Amino acid sequence: LGIPAAVYALPTRIRPTRVSCGPQFRRWLPISVSTLAQLLQVLGPEVISAPDPDADRYRRDFSVTAPAGVRILALARPRNSAEVAAVLRFCNERGVAVVPQGGMTGLVGGAVPISACVIISLERMRAILEIDRVAGTLTVEAGAPLQAVQEAADAADLMFPLDLGSRGSCQIGGNAATNAGGNRVLRYGMMRDLVLGIEVVLADGSVLSSLHKMLKNNSGYDLRQLFIGSEGTLGVITTLVLKLFPKPRSQSTALCMLRDYAAVLQLLGAARAGLAANLSAFEVMWPAFYDLGTTGLGRKPPLAASGGLCVLLEAQGVDAAQDSLRFEQLIAASMESAIVSDAVIAQSQREVREFWDIRDCPGEFPAVFWPQISFDVSVPTGDIGALVQELRDVLLERWPAIQLLFFGHAADGNLHLSARTAPDVLPEQEIEQLVYEVVGRRKGAISAEHGIGLQKRPYLYHSRSAAEIATMRRLKAALDPRGVLNPGKIF
Amino acid sequence: LGIPAAVYALPTRIRPTRVSCGPQFRRWLPISVSTLAQLLQVLGPEVISAPDPDADRYRRDFSVTAPAGVRILALARPRNSAEVAAVLRFCNERGVAVVPQGGMTGLVGGAVPISACVIISLERMRAILEIDRVAGTLTVEAGAPLQAVQEAADAADLMFPLDLGSRGSCQIGGNAATNAGGNRVLRYGMMRDLVLGIEVVLADGSVLSSLHKMLKNNSGYDLRQLFIGSEGTLGVITTLVLKLFPKPRSQSTALCMLRDYAAVLQLLGAARAGLAANLSAFEVMWPAFYDLGTTGLGRKPPLAASGGLCVLLEAQGVDAAQDSLRFEQLIAASMESAIVSDAVIAQSQREVREFWDIRDCPGEFPAVFWPQISFDVSVPTGDIGALVQELRDVLLERWPAIQLLFFGHAADGNLHLSARTAPDVLPEQEIEQLVYEVVGRRKGAISAEHGIGLQKRPYLYHSRSAAEIATMRRLKAALDPRGVLNPGKIF
Repeated sequence: LGIPAAVYALPTRIRPTRVSCGPQFRRWLPISVSTLAQLLQVLGPEVISAPDPDADRYRRDFSVTAPAGVRILALARPRNSAEVAAVLRFCNERGVAVVPQGGMTGLVGGAVPISACVIISLERMRAILEIDRVAGTLTVEAGAPLQAVQEAADAADLMFPLDLGSRGSCQIGGNAATNAGGNRVLRYGMMRDLVLGIEVVLADGSVLSSLHKMLKNNSGYDLRQLFIGSEGTLGVITTLVLKLFPKPRSQSTALCMLRDYAAVLQLLGAARAGLAANLSAFEVMWPAFYDLGTTGLGRKPPLAASGGLCVLLEAQGVDAAQDSLRFEQLIAASMESAIVSDAVIAQSQREVREFWDIRDCPGEFPAVFWPQISFDVSVPTGDIGALVQELRDVLLERWPAIQLLFFGHAADGNLHLSARTAPDVLPEQEIEQLVYEVVGRRKGAISAEHGIGLQKRPYLYHSRSAAEIATMRRLKAALDPRGVLNPGKIF
Repeated sequence: LGIPAAVYALPTRIRPTRVSCGPQFRRWLPISVSTLAQLLQVLGPEVISAPDPDADRYRRDFSVTAPAGVRILALARPRNSAEVAAVLRFCNERGVAVVPQGGMTGLVGGAVPISACVIISLERMRAILEIDRVAGTLTVEAGAPLQAVQEAADAADLMFPLDLGSRGSCQIGGNAATNAGGNRVLRYGMMRDLVLGIEVVLADGSVLSSLHKMLKNNSGYDLRQLFIGSEGTLGVITTLVLKLFPKPRSQSTALCMLRDYAAVLQLLGAARAGLAANLSAFEVMWPAFYDLGTTGLGRKPPLAASGGLCVLLEAQGVDAAQDSLRFEQLIAASMESAIVSDAVIAQSQREVREFWDIRDCPGEFPAVFWPQISFDVSVPTGDIGALVQELRDVLLERWPAIQLLFFGHAADGNLHLSARTAPDVLPEQEIEQLVYEVVGRRKGAISAEHGIGLQKRPYLYHSRSAAEIATMRRLKAALDPRGVLNPGKIF
């Protein structure tokens, strides 16, 4: 969704919380002898502390706050994998729940405590361990902020391409645990595609160290991919080997106006054929979103609103002169063939920033479109136009005053929707139920990039069959038989 | 390894087999009532047959032949997932081993029966189900040959980039089960990176259908990646949704001579920076390999042998004129800076083929370098030069007459080695033990792209820790608690 720095500073929770702690979590109640005291004996006050009961930091992410009664038994801030293992071994033996935490910038409550638990925060494990320029890899501890990873790669004249609005706060281990996405997935893939090696501590304290640097490794099961995207329910990621890329030397950015989604698909076809691997962003904004991101925020629109769709198109390459020429030819040809009705190519870095600011305007929603409820779903790229139409029909029929903003990474099949009714009257669960039903019927995913966590857990069955969910449970039981790792998340 | 059509036709097994059926497989002995008769009752003669006892087809792959006493109880050739599920349910209930088979082109015995079992051959499930041009996907049944997939994509003016020497015989489901690699991994990734959706039947007959087309899907665990590369031990892959790419419009290919591996790494750095995502192959051939692939096979070398290393460099792009210009500039600059001592750029498709024929000469080994033992290992790209030196030292010290050919996909960290001692005297296990010890000590992988199967099973511990292997066993027990799926493979 790309929530920028402004939102991090919000003094109170930014969304109403609706988390219930049912009887299934009762077993996570505090154990008889003080967990904190025992852990202190094992690991000492350097690693274990009692969290300040007033501190909100370990109790909420960007969307969800822990229910008031939930007690954090101890806060563990380990300095290495061995200490992570010691905490997990201790808790696993005693059946104490453990919630691993990164930068707490998630949007689905995946790392929010919902029962009495020990928190493992990776915040002290933030070292960049090695950059191997030849292998094109960066080895880093899980608690390093994404931005520190980007900067270290940049200093070695290479690039780590994952990028999110929360880059300054989110941690690279959390990016892996949630399989983070962002704006460059089209060209570089999701976090899953950017991890070559991984070290994970299992619930029982065993350390799986698979810190390989090779693109190719078919020596048994790919354990790495099982932990990526498992939202802290199967193990705690402690170290990662990441894939780096050459820095691009050219960038071309344009805004294009198109009459409808059919034209958007034509432009996508032309962009794929003409730019191939250079195509790095293809962001679609429906009219109400474009209006809000420009005039709605007091900005002059780079292109006059046409009532049609706006596409932000970007390419990155290695040949500044030729790449921009080819990009201009693509835009010109698309206008001549009437696929694009109007277009503007950025002539400066300032204009590039202006174009992206429109796309990134959800960060400013708290000022102009609040309270709102947001969605992150995916369906096949060709179906997005019909999905938008169907969601609009269904939601407007039920709530004629509802305001809907559609935007998304269309080439990835990823659509975002933000919805607002009258101020303070947000029938959140009803809206969610309707939206996820439509997405499920279209064989889409109820989470494209944010994960399931706590917030989407009730709706998982819309995207995954009973057999799939049963298989996830089997895997969970195999790796965490006592169910101590991040209980109550995903399923 | 790229074994071409000539080898498929070899009338007898192409490598000595050394498979022992220890007591651990005794439990797979035939059950009391005839499995064949019972299966026939359930599924009928359309699906179930008794294999011709003389037919070798279901008893061997390219490297390993089943031990003589191993009995195939029944041959199942299902026509759809439901029939696959029926066979698995039947066998799982009775504890009968099941071996899933694709095109039997593997190199490690992964699909070779080693105990009394029912074979499930996917050969009848070969339909291309759908091509979605907008999503850029192709949905296909697991038994379709790789080449049929490539041709179907091509007919839709798109490309499926996975390519192997056995493309005409290998099946796409087998490519997924073994996470196949090949010559284009550098640019397009391995099979793991090319699968968007998957349908798998588990040992108990449950069907997991996750046939998604979206690049982004974070709705719970990524079950897909768990099955890819699991070599038929966790489930039987029945259908796949594959990712297609725009066809490249330019191709530039060169052979370069370099004095040593340090120069190879300099060229790789320049190629990555100058060609970025267009760089599609970077194949390194050590001197003895280059000599055998040219004069050794009666061909005129395109570049005079220099005693140094030869690199086959290739780029693919979308702009024929500019791409070849940039490619030529890269080669010229590398010669000016003395990284490359001699080079030739292909001027025709015939020359492109000639260059690749040198790299693909292992397919002709049976005529000129036989019997031999081959290796497929990986270490970080920067360590390959030292690995070659160490392997040479260790092996020549032990067997002064040993002949060693080194070649590989250096940018992927992937090195191949073929070794031959005097004819008919190949101390296979001793050589393997030595090679894998060296690779293990260097934290490399004993299998980069061929898998573990049966042949590398004794050496898995060189690449994977006890904790990793224990975790693989836990996953195996969770998904196949009776151990009926392809028993005795990987670990």
